[in-house]
Amino acid sequence: MDWERKINRTVRIRNEQAVGQLARLLLAISDEGGGVGDIEMLTETSHHVVRDIAIYADNLEHFEKIIERLHAIVGTVVMDVRDEILELHLKGKIAIRSRYPIDSISTLRKVYTPGVAEVCLKIAADPSLARTYTSISHMVAIVTDGTAILGLGDIGSIAGMPVMEGKSMLMETLVGLSGIPILLNTKDPDQIVEAIAAISPTFAAIQLEDISAPRCFEIEERLQKRINIPVMHDDQHGTAAVVTAALLVASRQTGIYLSASKIGQIGLGAAGFGIASMLMKLTGNPVWGADLNPEAQKHLAWAGGTPSNLREIMETCDIVIATTGVAGLIKPEMVRKGQIILALSNPEPEINPDVALARGAVFAADGKSVNNVLGFPGIFRGAVDANAGRISDEMLLAAAQTIADCTPPGELVPNPLDKKVHQAVARAVAKKAIQQGIARSDYVAYADD
Amino acid sequence: MDWERKINRTVRIRNEQAVGQLARLLLAISDEGGGVGDIEMLTETSHHVVRDIAIYADNLEHFEKIIERLHAIVGTVVMDVRDEILELHLKGKIAIRSRYPIDSISTLRKVYTPGVAEVCLKIAADPSLARTYTSISHMVAIVTDGTAILGLGDIGSIAGMPVMEGKSMLMETLVGLSGIPILLNTKDPDQIVEAIAAISPTFAAIQLEDISAPRCFEIEERLQKRINIPVMHDDQHGTAAVVTAALLVASRQTGIYLSASKIGQIGLGAAGFGIASMLMKLTGNPVWGADLNPEAQKHLAWAGGTPSNLREIMETCDIVIATTGVAGLIKPEMVRKGQIILALSNPEPEINPDVALARGAVFAADGKSVNNVLGFPGIFRGAVDANAGRISDEMLLAAAQTIADCTPPGELVPNPLDKKVHQAVARAVAKKAIQQGIARSDYVAYADD
Repeated sequence: MDWERKINRTVRIRNEQAVGQLARLLLAISDEGGGVGDIEMLTETSHHVVRDIAIYADNLEHFEKIIERLHAIVGTVVMDVRDEILELHLKGKIAIRSRYPIDSISTLRKVYTPGVAEVCLKIAADPSLARTYTSISHMVAIVTDGTAILGLGDIGSIAGMPVMEGKSMLMETLVGLSGIPILLNTKDPDQIVEAIAAISPTFAAIQLEDISAPRCFEIEERLQKRINIPVMHDDQHGTAAVVTAALLVASRQTGIYLSASKIGQIGLGAAGFGIASMLMKLTGNPVWGADLNPEAQKHLAWAGGTPSNLREIMETCDIVIATTGVAGLIKPEMVRKGQIILALSNPEPEINPDVALARGAVFAADGKSVNNVLGFPGIFRGAVDANAGRISDEMLLAAAQTIADCTPPGELVPNPLDKKVHQAVARAVAKKAIQQGIARSDYVAYADD
Repeated sequence: MDWERKINRTVRIRNEQAVGQLARLLLAISDEGGGVGDIEMLTETSHHVVRDIAIYADNLEHFEKIIERLHAIVGTVVMDVRDEILELHLKGKIAIRSRYPIDSISTLRKVYTPGVAEVCLKIAADPSLARTYTSISHMVAIVTDGTAILGLGDIGSIAGMPVMEGKSMLMETLVGLSGIPILLNTKDPDQIVEAIAAISPTFAAIQLEDISAPRCFEIEERLQKRINIPVMHDDQHGTAAVVTAALLVASRQTGIYLSASKIGQIGLGAAGFGIASMLMKLTGNPVWGADLNPEAQKHLAWAGGTPSNLREIMETCDIVIATTGVAGLIKPEMVRKGQIILALSNPEPEINPDVALARGAVFAADGKSVNNVLGFPGIFRGAVDANAGRISDEMLLAAAQTIADCTPPGELVPNPLDKKVHQAVARAVAKKAIQQGIARSDYVAYADD
């Protein structure tokens, strides 16, 4: 099953009831280079079996070739082809829900006028009560200007909405926060900072999302100075926390200590810079960094890193992380024996982990293994629970450490849908905020244990 | 039951099992001038009955006097006093929900990376598809700067959040839209317009809410010129639609034709100006208007109305509407025989309807009878369904007409929680948008019937 294929369709197929018919069909698909996902049996009679089969292909032409091949199988009828991903997106993936029904005029008058006035006046007298009596307590803005959506680049904020909704679903599902997508129609950092600051009273925290480097650095820093709720650019810090967790796990598995290692970061965009910064914070040592953009190199030097280049990093570093978006950038012959290599670009890594291992790397992984879903939900939940005014480096490191500690033996990171992991991350982040004195809530339960 | 009292508490009371015990208790409450709402029996044994009783009082001291009186009743024990309104507001009244669960890695990869990329690219190629494949299709911003929250005035946007959440609950419950509260921390019209315009791609429509006059007029107009989705200040146009509906009903009941009547509007704030404008549109005649603020009078003249004063309006108009916020402004002796009087200020009207009727008014009602909940949900649903770029006067009049048509005999307006009414309003608004050519969706079902 190759998840990174670009086309995913659900095909409804009616087979004659015959031994080996499904196997023949699957063989035909794999023969054509297609992949198979979920198979669901819908009906079975003495004559026929109807199944929905998820088929993966490289592109539409490839998919059509697979379907043609299926048509040629005797006893198999292709009944329907559906695009299940599109179906799941119809009318969007999130909605507002009332937390209880308005089922009578009596309730209406409690949640709306005139009853609501008493609550408004209470909050007017003490605005901190908004965290108790309004949804501000769980609302997190997920803001994008659409300039760096996934690996797709500047496709506009509206085209980025499905990603923002996905983040929102994950926040709700994993930690019970209400992620509110906010799509900007400006790319100007001044205007972005102004707009988000202007609407910031609505939220308990701001997640910046898929904003291109180097603008993302400036926007995050300026916005955090303006408002007293946490601002975090997930592509930098959420990703960094998860990559750091993976490195901590790799370090345990290999016995290679991060603090005693020379670490190189190839690619200094949002993710790369975030990873380098966090590892410098963790180890106290500089990280070697490479980027084709001289400004990005300068930015690393400003942050305490050492500008370098691809060749030098591959030749001298014990640990190499790549986030360049350039498939195959790291040639097999560049790999040195005993290196840890995380080649994180999606959908295609800088070097295939198997190839890196074959060339002597002691540990190798790609971006599919390091899911950033593990970071942001718990980090925001913890920061919001503690009512922290910002998210400190130490809170992010606490998240990384917790993700590493929750990783089952033999795995690089935990299951991203394991809610216990996200709860543990939230707990650790809130606890750290309290220890650092940047929490405004007294979550003694977090601080004491 | 006096709904407009300012304190509403739920009292848990244990009565001895005795004939007339509850009656004695209710008598004691009414003796002290308290009101009673829902009564719920919780447990009953051969010795005791435990009930939750909602008690209304003018203020806390008044409530305490009532409780003292209850303590004095033999056989009655006050077990607990709860503030149910506050309880209903704990952690807010709305939340984001995922429209289906992320229950497997397979689903995760359809709604998030990598599957989501295909949907993003589709929308990047044709942004109009965002209405099909994202939640933009049902998201409506509910924006306030907190300057005119209910009748409470400028208490700040955060203190206004319970009202915005109430609107959001009603949108979801009545018409299935997702109302997203947006709280501003600026009162500057320039900054407000810029901020809302910057985040407008997120939404299918913008509801401005509780923004003080005259700023609300400018903000609405400038914003609507900037963006091509409907912008509506509910305090003006939603309220106007419902008041117009009530007048249409009163007109039918009394046989007084609006077009043949001289209409006066006392108070030219957001609501008053909105009502005057809509009635001028409906009748084609000027409306006489009075306001202590000369700018408001000028604004009315600019819109085609006739500046006047309280005395002249009461002496010469057949229909008088008051939205001044000044209780008792209209003295009984000002009422002329045969007038229609809507005294709409809450919680206390400009003149009590009973008094107005006793003085010869042919029809009188107060603000409690004209619930603005009847307007905005259906108006927005219709405008969004038609994908109209704005909400025209004609669409608002269609809403008013529909609300009037849905009013049961003997009532002034329909039940605000009747979903069929809201559906009918949505249908009428969408149909009008299509007829006027300002719809961008082809809802032929609306246009044909």
